[in-house]
Amino acid sequence: MRGGTSKCWVFDESAMPAEPSLDRVLAAAFGSSDPRQIDGVGGATSTTSKAAIVRRSADAEVDIEYLFAQVGIGFDGVEWGSNCGNCATAVGLYALQTGLVDARHPVSVVRMRNRNTGAVLTATVPTPDGIVPELGGQTVPGSAAAGVPVALGFLNPAGTSTGALLPTGDAVDRVDSVDASLIDAGAPAMLVDARQIGATAHESVEEFEAFVPELRRLRRLGALRMGLDTPQDPVRHGVPKVGVVAAPAPYRTSTGVAVAAADHDLAVRMLSMHAPHPAIGLTSAVAVAAGVVTTGTLPATLAGNRPVQTSIRLGTPVGVVPVDIDLDDSGAVRAVTLHRAARRIATAELLVPVRVPVPGSLSS
Amino acid sequence: MRGGTSKCWVFDESAMPAEPSLDRVLAAAFGSSDPRQIDGVGGATSTTSKAAIVRRSADAEVDIEYLFAQVGIGFDGVEWGSNCGNCATAVGLYALQTGLVDARHPVSVVRMRNRNTGAVLTATVPTPDGIVPELGGQTVPGSAAAGVPVALGFLNPAGTSTGALLPTGDAVDRVDSVDASLIDAGAPAMLVDARQIGATAHESVEEFEAFVPELRRLRRLGALRMGLDTPQDPVRHGVPKVGVVAAPAPYRTSTGVAVAAADHDLAVRMLSMHAPHPAIGLTSAVAVAAGVVTTGTLPATLAGNRPVQTSIRLGTPVGVVPVDIDLDDSGAVRAVTLHRAARRIATAELLVPVRVPVPGSLSS
Repeated sequence: MRGGTSKCWVFDESAMPAEPSLDRVLAAAFGSSDPRQIDGVGGATSTTSKAAIVRRSADAEVDIEYLFAQVGIGFDGVEWGSNCGNCATAVGLYALQTGLVDARHPVSVVRMRNRNTGAVLTATVPTPDGIVPELGGQTVPGSAAAGVPVALGFLNPAGTSTGALLPTGDAVDRVDSVDASLIDAGAPAMLVDARQIGATAHESVEEFEAFVPELRRLRRLGALRMGLDTPQDPVRHGVPKVGVVAAPAPYRTSTGVAVAAADHDLAVRMLSMHAPHPAIGLTSAVAVAAGVVTTGTLPATLAGNRPVQTSIRLGTPVGVVPVDIDLDDSGAVRAVTLHRAARRIATAELLVPVRVPVPGSLSS
Repeated sequence: MRGGTSKCWVFDESAMPAEPSLDRVLAAAFGSSDPRQIDGVGGATSTTSKAAIVRRSADAEVDIEYLFAQVGIGFDGVEWGSNCGNCATAVGLYALQTGLVDARHPVSVVRMRNRNTGAVLTATVPTPDGIVPELGGQTVPGSAAAGVPVALGFLNPAGTSTGALLPTGDAVDRVDSVDASLIDAGAPAMLVDARQIGATAHESVEEFEAFVPELRRLRRLGALRMGLDTPQDPVRHGVPKVGVVAAPAPYRTSTGVAVAAADHDLAVRMLSMHAPHPAIGLTSAVAVAAGVVTTGTLPATLAGNRPVQTSIRLGTPVGVVPVDIDLDDSGAVRAVTLHRAARRIATAELLVPVRVPVPGSLSS
């Protein structure tokens, strides 16, 4: 399925082996060991090498649960450390299209728990007369492709990975001489002051390549500072999300469209694994938006500490991404909603050339 | 399916619309308009954005016929000008697995006509007891992935596109101050003397990037010289195959394995569309091998005009690719055989978001 600006293979849990064999089966199904993924269904880019495994939930709070897999490109493995909002969009539509959740008139709401992070999300899909559409006319910044409109809500997104919106207790941390806000909302994210590493946060994707090594280095330090990893742990490439933020300024999108300073509230450029993100990950967008409404953080300061709005406009390489914010009476973030599109691309049976231990048998 | 070092979606013709709608359906199915192909099943590289459409043949000379499609990456279209040997490997196995051709004990031979070029090929697959394997242990240079062994034979490959092995009548042509052999066997190919453009034909894939603009420019001139295009035609990116050749010399493969000068007969570096080919296209390998056995061509001269062998060893970025040659009594090439592997990756129903005119209705 396509969800927003990602392509995601969505699996019913009943068709998949249990962990840890799940890693091997997914890596083999995607052809992960090869950087072009020629021996599997992977798309060979970070936004097209994703999977979700879905099941009904026994928990009354949600309808379904899903595991998100960032499947390796050029290495034979899977990273499980993060959620993916674009895939969640696809999972929501999948749950309605496959009947895991019943559709209602005029809209259906699918309540989902992401098992990687514990995040609770809602996917709201127009389903007139209870009919689930296969195609739709909605587009999102970063893709000309149309799909079924899905409003994706992240409920009470603060602290799902670490227990706190600001895991270090500080709105700005000094990490190896660079200021960064370490924010846990939607996903753990490290938002670096662009100017302090020589960036502008208005770069094109190509220009932003130059900052990948420094941000990968800082990501590791941020992971340690946020308590996500210890020095003994291997370096992870998906956690935390890492990028730079800056005050609004004029720039051009990847397709050449001019964006004025007045058109966005904050400029942001993120990494996706080892490369510049062509747009912005949705969980990163949640973290950035939560930062904008949290006094003292870099996003709040750089966005001008303007009064809390119902919608925050993020200036990304593909254009302006609006993020709706719903605060409770104490000013805490109750929900962050993004407006996305999804569609089914294929329904497939995959032939996976890997032996999986049968439960009860000897395995090495 | 994977065929050798390519990934190829193979379609039964009965499931597809007729041309020209076929272009639109394939481009939409692959998500071609986007360079990452996020809204379709394409793999976003030249070796993973391929399709074949297969049908039984009414012609007694062959069992099946197939059309090869190089599906656009970042442009909404399809190129039909060439054949793809790796996909032919997959098509041969597909024909046996789907029952288009009956399997026999101990091996099955599928006779195929490529409709793009008229080329006739054979795929020979071990099928003990008439059982068609799903998986196998065979690998090919350029991929660690195992598959079912398929010997792919190109029958009477000379002149299938232009009517002559040497379309200009010359073994070496001077094209804009550069020597090149223009050879039509398997596919039309333009083989440039590496040294004359400052190359060695022993470059890594990354190093060879530097020669892409010059080779793209020469490809157009070669297309005109070979009579494949006229100056009024749009520039094509797949025809002719273009690359450089040089005498053997020590080099390292993409995975760091040392190759001695004595390990190969000729060094070759080819383009695939707009980028260095990570290995060598099979139809290019046929053209290069046919050149080696044709006196006076650059491949023959650079390979040292050694006596005709049954096997020629091409030094490619991924390692040495052996090519078997079968000559008739007159010295003409009767068959060129490559040893490949293929497997089914998935069986899928694709949802394609494009309207196709119904036969008999008005269309624009």
